[in-house]
This record gives sequence, C-alpha cells and structure tokens, in this order.
Amino acid sequence: MARLVMKFGGTSVADLDRIRRAAGRVAAEVEAGHHVAVIVSAMAGETNKLVGLTGDASALHDAREYDAVVASGEQVTAGLLAMVLQNDGISARSWLGWQIPIHTDGVHGAARIESIDTAEIERRFDENQVAIVAGFQGLGPDNRITTLGRGGSDTSAVALAAALKADRCDIYTDVDGVYTADPSVVAGAAKLDKITYEEMLELASLGAKVLQTRSVEMAMNHGVRVQVRSSMNDTSGTLLVDEDEIVEQHVVSGVTYAPNEAKITLMQVADKPGVAAAIFGPLSDHNVNVDMIVQNISEDGKRTDLTFTVGRGDLDRAIAVIKEMKGAIDYKDLVSDADVVKVSIVGVGMRSHAGVAQKMFTALAEKNINIQVISTSEIKISVLIADDYSELAVRALHSAFNLDDL
Amino acid sequence: MARLVMKFGGTSVADLDRIRRAAGRVAAEVEAGHHVAVIVSAMAGETNKLVGLTGDASALHDAREYDAVVASGEQVTAGLLAMVLQNDGISARSWLGWQIPIHTDGVHGAARIESIDTAEIERRFDENQVAIVAGFQGLGPDNRITTLGRGGSDTSAVALAAALKADRCDIYTDVDGVYTADPSVVAGAAKLDKITYEEMLELASLGAKVLQTRSVEMAMNHGVRVQVRSSMNDTSGTLLVDEDEIVEQHVVSGVTYAPNEAKITLMQVADKPGVAAAIFGPLSDHNVNVDMIVQNISEDGKRTDLTFTVGRGDLDRAIAVIKEMKGAIDYKDLVSDADVVKVSIVGVGMRSHAGVAQKMFTALAEKNINIQVISTSEIKISVLIADDYSELAVRALHSAFNLDDL
Repeated sequence: MARLVMKFGGTSVADLDRIRRAAGRVAAEVEAGHHVAVIVSAMAGETNKLVGLTGDASALHDAREYDAVVASGEQVTAGLLAMVLQNDGISARSWLGWQIPIHTDGVHGAARIESIDTAEIERRFDENQVAIVAGFQGLGPDNRITTLGRGGSDTSAVALAAALKADRCDIYTDVDGVYTADPSVVAGAAKLDKITYEEMLELASLGAKVLQTRSVEMAMNHGVRVQVRSSMNDTSGTLLVDEDEIVEQHVVSGVTYAPNEAKITLMQVADKPGVAAAIFGPLSDHNVNVDMIVQNISEDGKRTDLTFTVGRGDLDRAIAVIKEMKGAIDYKDLVSDADVVKVSIVGVGMRSHAGVAQKMFTALAEKNINIQVISTSEIKISVLIADDYSELAVRALHSAFNLDDL
Repeated sequence: MARLVMKFGGTSVADLDRIRRAAGRVAAEVEAGHHVAVIVSAMAGETNKLVGLTGDASALHDAREYDAVVASGEQVTAGLLAMVLQNDGISARSWLGWQIPIHTDGVHGAARIESIDTAEIERRFDENQVAIVAGFQGLGPDNRITTLGRGGSDTSAVALAAALKADRCDIYTDVDGVYTADPSVVAGAAKLDKITYEEMLELASLGAKVLQTRSVEMAMNHGVRVQVRSSMNDTSGTLLVDEDEIVEQHVVSGVTYAPNEAKITLMQVADKPGVAAAIFGPLSDHNVNVDMIVQNISEDGKRTDLTFTVGRGDLDRAIAVIKEMKGAIDYKDLVSDADVVKVSIVGVGMRSHAGVAQKMFTALAEKNINIQVISTSEIKISVLIADDYSELAVRALHSAFNLDDL
C-alpha cells in the first residue's frame, strides 16, 4: 500500500468525459489499495476566461480580488471530480485551499506555500476517502484566497506530496513525459524514462512547459518522486530522480529552445563602475526580466557595447525605459532585434565531460549558424541565434550529442 | 448618512458592462455619503451552467459538492465588482460567505442563515470601504460552503441588512417593481409604490418571481425596508412596508397565476381516519409538495373523492408513488390533469372587506370559467381552473377589483 498524489492539468479535466477518465485512473489506484490525494486544475480554458474578465474589469487590478476570481475554476473541478468518484462508489470529498488549509505567504497572484495541515486528510485516508484538492490556491495571512501563479497546480501537487510524505507524485498532462527535444521539431526525439531534478529545473526555466519551475525546485528540495505522464494513454512517463539513480548517464539529456526572446544592444556605453546598475536597476523597477547579458571588452577602456536579452513581450517597455534614462546611462545608440531565439543544451553529464561547449559551437558552425550571445551554467549552455535557424540548430545539436540514437 | 444594502441579481451583473453600471449605482450611494454593503448574484447563466455540470457529473449528487461547485459563480462576480469599483476610485473589497462568516445550518443546497458576523464589515464602513458580498452562500457547521437554494441571494441581502440594521435593502432586478398583475398579460397592470410584507409573501409563494419567499419572511420578521427596483432605469421601485404605512388601502393588491400546476383526484377513497396520512405521508417522503387539497363530503359516509394539486414536474412521480401504495390507500381510481392553473388574488384589505370571494367567483362565472378547487388564507383566495382560461381569468379579476384604474 502506497500513498500517492495524482495531479490532473487543465486538458486532463477539460470536460466531464475527461473528468470521468481521470476518475477512472484515481479509482484504479484506490482499488490497488493505495491512499490517494488528487490535485486538480481548472477545466481547460476556464482560467484564461477568468483572467480575461479581471483584465477587462480593471487594467491595474487588486491582486487579492484577482485571486478570488481566478481561484474559482479549480473549485468547480474539485467538486465535479468528487461527485464523479462518489458516483462510481469511491469515497471522496473536495478540499479548497482555505479548508485544509494550505497556508501561503501574502503575495497575492504569486504566493508561496508555507505549510499544509494534512491531519484531517490523513485521518480520512484511514477511512479510504480520496482527497480532491483544488490546485493553484491557498490561504493568505489575511484570511483571503491566494493563488500560486500560472501553472501553480504543479507546485500544489508537489507541496502536498511533500507534506504527506507521499511515495510518488504523478503529474498527468497532455504529453507522455519529458523528451530529449520537442518531437514536433525533431522527429527522432525520445522520451526520457528518468531525468535528474537539476536537468528538469533547467529545462523548465528554459521554457519547457511540462512542469512549473517552482514545483521542480520544491520536488528537488524535498526529494519528492515526481512522475510526468500522459492522462490520455497508459505509457509510463518520465520520473524525476537524483543524479545517482541514473545508471547510464548521457552528457546531454535535452535540447530546448525558447522562442520569445528579444535582444537589445547599447552601443558605446561609458565603461565605468555603476553603469550596469544604472541600466538594469530601472528595468527591474519596471518588471522587465533581463536574461542573458554580454559586455564586449572596450578597446580604449572608455566605451563598450552592452548586449542583453529580454522577453519579446517586454521589448517595447524595455526600450522606452532605457531611452528615458539616456542622460543617466550615457550611450551612443540603441539597437534591438526581436528575431532571435535561445537554444540550450542541458545535462548533468557536462560536469564530468570536457569539450561540451566546443562540440556545441562546432555543430552550429557546421550549419553556418552565427552565435550572438552565450550564457552557461554548470549543467547548461545557451546560445542566442537568429530565429530562422532555430529548428535547424535544435536538430543539429540533437544529432551532435547522439540523442537521435536513444 | 444612511447604511444601505444593495443587491444585484444575475441579469444586473450579466457581463462587465452591466457590472460597470451596477458599480455606478454603488458609487452614487457612496458619494452621497452612505455606507454600503452589496450582495451579488452570479453572472446570468453561470449558475445554470454550473448546476448543469453537477447534474451531468452525477444524477444523485452529494449536496456538499454541489454547493462547492455552484457557489463559485457569486465568488467571480464579487471579485469583479470590487475591481471595477476600485478602478473608479471607490474603496471596496469582496467577501465570501466563509470569510465573514455567514453561518448557516448544515442543510447543504437549501441552508438557512443562522448568524452573520458583521464586525469587520462595520469597522471598514468607518473607513468608507464598500463590502461586496457573494450572495447565495454561507459556511456550514462542517466548515464547508453551503448554498441557500435558488434565488438565495435575496435572502443573503435581507439577512445582511437585518444584521447590519441597514436603513434600506434595495433589490436591483430586471423589473421596475411589483405589479398588480403580470404586465405581459394585463395591459393595464400598474406598479405598486408600496406593498405589505404579507401580500408580498403571498405573491412570492404564489409564483411571482420578484423575490425569494424566504427573503420576504425574513424582511417581515426583522422589519427590513426592502425596495424592489430596476437596475436598468432610475424609476422608483416598490417598497415593502408594514400595513399601517399604506394610507389608501385597496381590497386586492394583486392578481397572480401559477402555471405549473397539476391536479390529481383519487376516486372513492375510503372515508376513514388516517387515510390522508396514508396518502400525503409517502408523497412528502418522495419530496412531492402538495399544495391545494379538497375532499368532497361522501354521501354514504364510506367513500369520498379526494383532489389535490402538485407541481407539474412532480406529477409523474406523485402518480407512481400513489399507485405503488394502492393497497394501503384503498381507492377506486386515479384521475390526473396537467392542464390546470392556479389564479390568486392577494390583498390585506380582504380582512376588513366582506364578499371578496363572492366577487371573485362572480367575475369568473361571468366569463364561463369553471372553478375546480378553491383554497383561501386570510389575505388570499386561490382557484384552480383549466389553463386555457388563465389569461382571461387574470384580466377579469384585475378589472373586477378596480386595479385597471390605479
């Protein structure tokens, strides 16, 4: 007998037929003798609809009211799934964030879970009752509903699994698992049976939409065994594991690309202390996230070119902020380019293998792809290239690191 | 400075334009210096959609899960209205039933309000904050969401007005107020400026959809000054008042008809003690509401015909229950008729005027309308007639009691 957390995303509970299919999966685990807590998302499209309503209601809205409105979607799914399970003879009840409660901090719209009181849910496990928990929501210190940010139901699931010391946390979604690359780009992309937490963390933050970044962090910190699998079929998915659980380690586990990037270059910036702060401080104040940054060495030690990337949606705002600060920043010209893409390779094997970067650059050079910016971490190398070449680059790298043969 | 409760029904918050219009009405009261609490319904159509989902999820559903699902509609409206008001520079916050809390009993799906803790709302009145309260919902003794039954937001509004000792409770809806008859049936129907609680109670329970019956009862018991008015225009509405506040009393204030009736006659029932209990007990057990009952005097003292009415939707169930009990009840034949309608006249003036029933029966007889069943209360006379004659009967009665000339 195991203790399981199962999480169903929006497409897996999109309508009553899908909810019934999800209920069937829950019932199978219950009948196998397991104790089950289920986290549900809102029915596909509902959250977008609610977010749209709040945007139309008020451009600058109160995040507390936003949370009250947007959290209603998960409440509906939780009640419906409980009903369907009861109808199938399975004891189940729905739980809202404030009922458990799932305590969060007070950052409405992007709250962090602080603690989950699982006593009552565990007591009911002994009566073989399934807990159906509304994802994405919690209770703030102000006794109001908080939400965890888009994709927050993944975090709800992992946090609940950690609190319950669950044996596994199965994330049911619309893909079979984590792939070596986007299968729509690379025909030979293979599903990974296992991936390390760190690799998954990099992939999530590089734009792979499989799991919310924060949920991976939390799974890593609490050693939650997360499995990503499809709600549409019975194929086994991808299990997140510690590095030592992967027997045959590849140097690179995945190739990914993030399309919504934009590049800004400030020409001939004064090369003196404090100039970076003068540029990136105001951008941060205006909620512009800066990703890659590269600064050329100036020939004369007085002027330098500074290049950085931002999300494409933030480009106009970023340019406006910088132009407004032109006097303070002291640069000659601003050049921007929205037609860029960030391509990355990720793998814990990089730590023990030399020459990975060299191999990546060579593979791109062989296809005549020009690298505009480079950034690296211990287990990741990212390059910015012209977006016309994104698919070619992903395929070339997939081959270069022998992922086609998995 | 007054303390006001304003309630907006589903059609008055059907979309963001309507919500903005409602916000305008709230803003006007705030700017006039009043302290305002607002009760909102779900956006028109939302509750029906949610109720439909619960029905599809499970035919025999857990009322606690039903409540969790269905209460989400009001939550959305409350948040949106708070946002729109804030956007207009009015301090406002949304309140859910469990946050205030609005304590109810544990009868999920049809809960009764037991108490409302208004301390925090009143404290915020002093800071000129508007309370936007989700209608229709409360918190049960099991710490779960309860709902008050369809139309329950009226009751939420009156209960909150009573708890706050509000100077007035304005119910904004899609009609101008309470009319002497349905204006779509009687061209000369007039809006009443005032109506007594008792008359409104009769009208509500006779099928006038203006206010939920329980809300009128509660207003009467707590002396809440309820005004029914349109959210679409600025016409003054109808005020519910005590009898002594109405200076010029009409004998009859309104003529109404309830179309969804059905009649069952049991022929030659044994005329002995306990037979009524044998019939109506099982019907009650099967949730069939019996309305009018008439029993003919038997000629020989042994057998009698018993006629009663039920809701048309309950007719098949009622017949099935009675047929199943045929042995216990001992009747010869069952005859049913779904083509009947109940026409009623209501007025506190009946108490002091003789001959009202006679006048009613004469007016119907003059139109050759046959009366099948009669039932009366102190301020109401209802007759059951063939439904072909319903509009003719309403018009004839409206004229007979001089309501055309108001």
